[in-house]
Amino acid sequence: MMNTPLTVNSMIERAESYFPKKEVVSRTSSGIHRLSYKQIGARTRSLASALEKLGVKKGDKVGTLAWNDHRHLEAYFAVPSMGAVLHTINIRLSAEHLSYIINHAEDKVLMVDAGLMPLLENIKDKLSSVEAIVVMTDEDDLPASSLQPLYSYEDLLAGGDEKYSFSNKIEEEDPAGICYTSGTTGKPKGVLYSHRGLVLHSMALCLSDTAGVSESDVCLPVVPMFHANAWGTPFAATWVGATQVLPGPYPTPQLLAELIESTKVTITAGVPTIWLGLLNELEKKSYNTDSLRAVLCGGSAAPKGMIRAFESKYGIPFIHAYGMTETTPLVILSRLKSYQQNLPEEEKLEIRSKQGTAVPGIEIKVVNDNGEAKWDGQEMGELLVRGPWIADSYYKDERSADAFRDGWLHTGDVVTIDEEGFIKIVDRTKDLIKSGGEWISSVDLENALMAHESVFEAAVVAVPDPKWQERPVACVVLKEGYKDTVSQEDLLQFLAPQFAKWWLPDQVLFIEEIPKTSVGKFLKMALREQVKERLTIQS
Amino acid sequence: MMNTPLTVNSMIERAESYFPKKEVVSRTSSGIHRLSYKQIGARTRSLASALEKLGVKKGDKVGTLAWNDHRHLEAYFAVPSMGAVLHTINIRLSAEHLSYIINHAEDKVLMVDAGLMPLLENIKDKLSSVEAIVVMTDEDDLPASSLQPLYSYEDLLAGGDEKYSFSNKIEEEDPAGICYTSGTTGKPKGVLYSHRGLVLHSMALCLSDTAGVSESDVCLPVVPMFHANAWGTPFAATWVGATQVLPGPYPTPQLLAELIESTKVTITAGVPTIWLGLLNELEKKSYNTDSLRAVLCGGSAAPKGMIRAFESKYGIPFIHAYGMTETTPLVILSRLKSYQQNLPEEEKLEIRSKQGTAVPGIEIKVVNDNGEAKWDGQEMGELLVRGPWIADSYYKDERSADAFRDGWLHTGDVVTIDEEGFIKIVDRTKDLIKSGGEWISSVDLENALMAHESVFEAAVVAVPDPKWQERPVACVVLKEGYKDTVSQEDLLQFLAPQFAKWWLPDQVLFIEEIPKTSVGKFLKMALREQVKERLTIQS
Repeated sequence: MMNTPLTVNSMIERAESYFPKKEVVSRTSSGIHRLSYKQIGARTRSLASALEKLGVKKGDKVGTLAWNDHRHLEAYFAVPSMGAVLHTINIRLSAEHLSYIINHAEDKVLMVDAGLMPLLENIKDKLSSVEAIVVMTDEDDLPASSLQPLYSYEDLLAGGDEKYSFSNKIEEEDPAGICYTSGTTGKPKGVLYSHRGLVLHSMALCLSDTAGVSESDVCLPVVPMFHANAWGTPFAATWVGATQVLPGPYPTPQLLAELIESTKVTITAGVPTIWLGLLNELEKKSYNTDSLRAVLCGGSAAPKGMIRAFESKYGIPFIHAYGMTETTPLVILSRLKSYQQNLPEEEKLEIRSKQGTAVPGIEIKVVNDNGEAKWDGQEMGELLVRGPWIADSYYKDERSADAFRDGWLHTGDVVTIDEEGFIKIVDRTKDLIKSGGEWISSVDLENALMAHESVFEAAVVAVPDPKWQERPVACVVLKEGYKDTVSQEDLLQFLAPQFAKWWLPDQVLFIEEIPKTSVGKFLKMALREQVKERLTIQS
Repeated sequence: MMNTPLTVNSMIERAESYFPKKEVVSRTSSGIHRLSYKQIGARTRSLASALEKLGVKKGDKVGTLAWNDHRHLEAYFAVPSMGAVLHTINIRLSAEHLSYIINHAEDKVLMVDAGLMPLLENIKDKLSSVEAIVVMTDEDDLPASSLQPLYSYEDLLAGGDEKYSFSNKIEEEDPAGICYTSGTTGKPKGVLYSHRGLVLHSMALCLSDTAGVSESDVCLPVVPMFHANAWGTPFAATWVGATQVLPGPYPTPQLLAELIESTKVTITAGVPTIWLGLLNELEKKSYNTDSLRAVLCGGSAAPKGMIRAFESKYGIPFIHAYGMTETTPLVILSRLKSYQQNLPEEEKLEIRSKQGTAVPGIEIKVVNDNGEAKWDGQEMGELLVRGPWIADSYYKDERSADAFRDGWLHTGDVVTIDEEGFIKIVDRTKDLIKSGGEWISSVDLENALMAHESVFEAAVVAVPDPKWQERPVACVVLKEGYKDTVSQEDLLQFLAPQFAKWWLPDQVLFIEEIPKTSVGKFLKMALREQVKERLTIQS
């Protein structure tokens, strides 16, 4: 067979050829813009030629500090298609981590949204590799800034070559992108994405049995483009010529609901926190969401109650998925098998609230001290993942040896796998609660708590216990209107029929907010500290 | 990223893990058999271990002479998954070509349906490489035969190891299969399929925007498994855990209609001749075909009237596709774009009767003496194809240089491409009619003729002409009941409003049957000879 490589440029070229009229709806700080793929293609080529003039060569890193908009999309394709490496920078990192990853990746050029320039100004003296900064702005004039040398994105494009030929010297194993995991401890770790991995991942996203991204879709990635390739949706959607809706800076639940209604979004993707916000918005005000065929939810486990609310209350199909920065990210997705469709509704909900089965192309394995866990939905083990879009190491990082062993990525997630192959996340290896020699799943307790009508969010952490080693404590944020009406006893009574007695939390603490990571996951480490302080004050 | 290879064994392993209960419905000479993927998986492993005992090693060729049934499916996976190469032999080849390809491929073992043994007995003295022959039979006893040494498939399986581990020494570029094109001239040419090509092709078949093969499908490949991998459906369907219906020896239109009704087939694939037969059957007798979501049609162009009949008369969605043995085969498929859905019905039919657009992963180009043809639906040129599941040469064959040039496969098909990128086959380069310095498309005339209510099949060929160089002559097979009721003048009057005057055939010859290749395509060369004879007799 021909050895034609799987490369990112083939995806934008396909959109240019077959879908020049289809559109990208992009919200920036100045409002909504609509660009056709013909325009996006020409602008992408201009950008690549301009970056080349700025000195960017094959293998160089180009960083972006940007929200989800058309310029970020153009960078997604321009940088890899010229053989360089797109470094999507998480704008929610601390100043220390920001400068660390820019220096560690050795970014040569940074592209930054005008509104995010303060993040860079703050750390400019610490940056060791950056030679040029490009401001992604709609304004004609560059904002005043201490950053140097500063270029205007649109000026560069105006001087670029919209017929620029993408590199034909790219091997499919060449790096196309890099993203750093926003870990809860230590310095962020970099993950390199190959051209091959990104293309195969796009194919995986477009399969009928996964997200089935299609030309007829209107695709709204709420998950940021600086987080694990926005789950690959910008690549996949461009490749098949889907309409894309990029929601821009600080998307609020109201904004998302309005975009879903006005642009007839068919598929959207984000973390549970986003969907909790959207649910609240839908309860406050009426929106037409009939166009939605799938809400893709990942990043952390969605409570069953949320899935039920979306589906039975609003008729919006909800698809649970699982992935990590290290996995491009899609590896597991929850779709009922055909013969499961006839099960009673509650059983189906039970299955669909699991993370799902490995998508085609990916292998998984659940291991514990006894070897591979039984497929019984009971035995816990760590999830191991393998496949062509799974990282094989962290970029120039000694910590690789922990996670990448024997050809498998060790995810650090504790899961069960049932007889049908459905994976359920039980906990992070580090967040499991070990009480009297037995494991208690904080995630199970959290999901059960969040199914209570009064609970907005709930997190369960371990506290040291002289007798049992560790005991669970629940931290609960109540919904507005329920404050002071619900007690610890109410919630414990609610949990009691669902769990063994020794699983029940020793205490329920009512708090104002659960600390979260920059990508919206519960920051258990910080929460454990808070809980420790409160319990110390109490005692 | 991890360098996990794309290999065929991963597809059957996925079916074993996730879909052990799903079934393959297999018709053999003894009737209908139902096997689960768990059984198919175990039998596939047993077969691989038995072939290993017979001496089959990595890279060895194992030939099959078989209809579409579960044993052939097992061979599809067992042979590549042990690192050997599956040679699917076209049972309709002449004795001379049969022995040529078995010797040319150097098949070490042949697996043959009991009913097809005479094909081998006929040529046994000419075979130079074959060391063992395995009879695929339901019977307990081997049939009497002059073939030696002879083994029973089921006996081999009974002595095999159903826990056999597939090879982990396969690189994705390694050959997994070989198939010879049944060309109309010269010796057949071999095409090697790599593991990588077959896996990527399976992904392409399962995309929402192509055939969208899914776990919920019931997939009936009518296209033989000895012809271009049955268009890849056995691989794709197994990979996603779809139910498969394999129709066995000599499938008649009645049998197919019955299978569609009884097994609730959702997607089926075959050449126009098959669908013409099925249409006739549906007109004769009433069947429930509600389950069908797609009839995939390729091999040669489907007349517009056939598409209309399937869709408007029977409500069966019809999908036109294009490929060749050299292309695994899927490269082009006809799906309306979302914004074409609102066009008038006739315009949509017009678009959908074209072959379609290149599927994701494949590049095409239409070239003629002036360079690349304009995307105007008018300018003709030869179709060139490139991509990771396109062959780069014929197996050990000097004729490779004709078809494979400058990194592209030159298909020999003359096409137009319209502004939306839809390819329409105009003719084979060799079948175009050159009249007065201008080209006439035989395919266009054929399709127009076949839209006439009286016409069962029509083929148009060139005859030499002293004045115009070549002129078209139409050969028409009338439907039963129309014989002697329709004249040449009737048909020419029917064509007149649709074509320039000089395109109209000089003569319409009514014949009993159009000669066809072993895969059901019109054999224009033979037809030209017949026409020449008849015209000589007439003059």
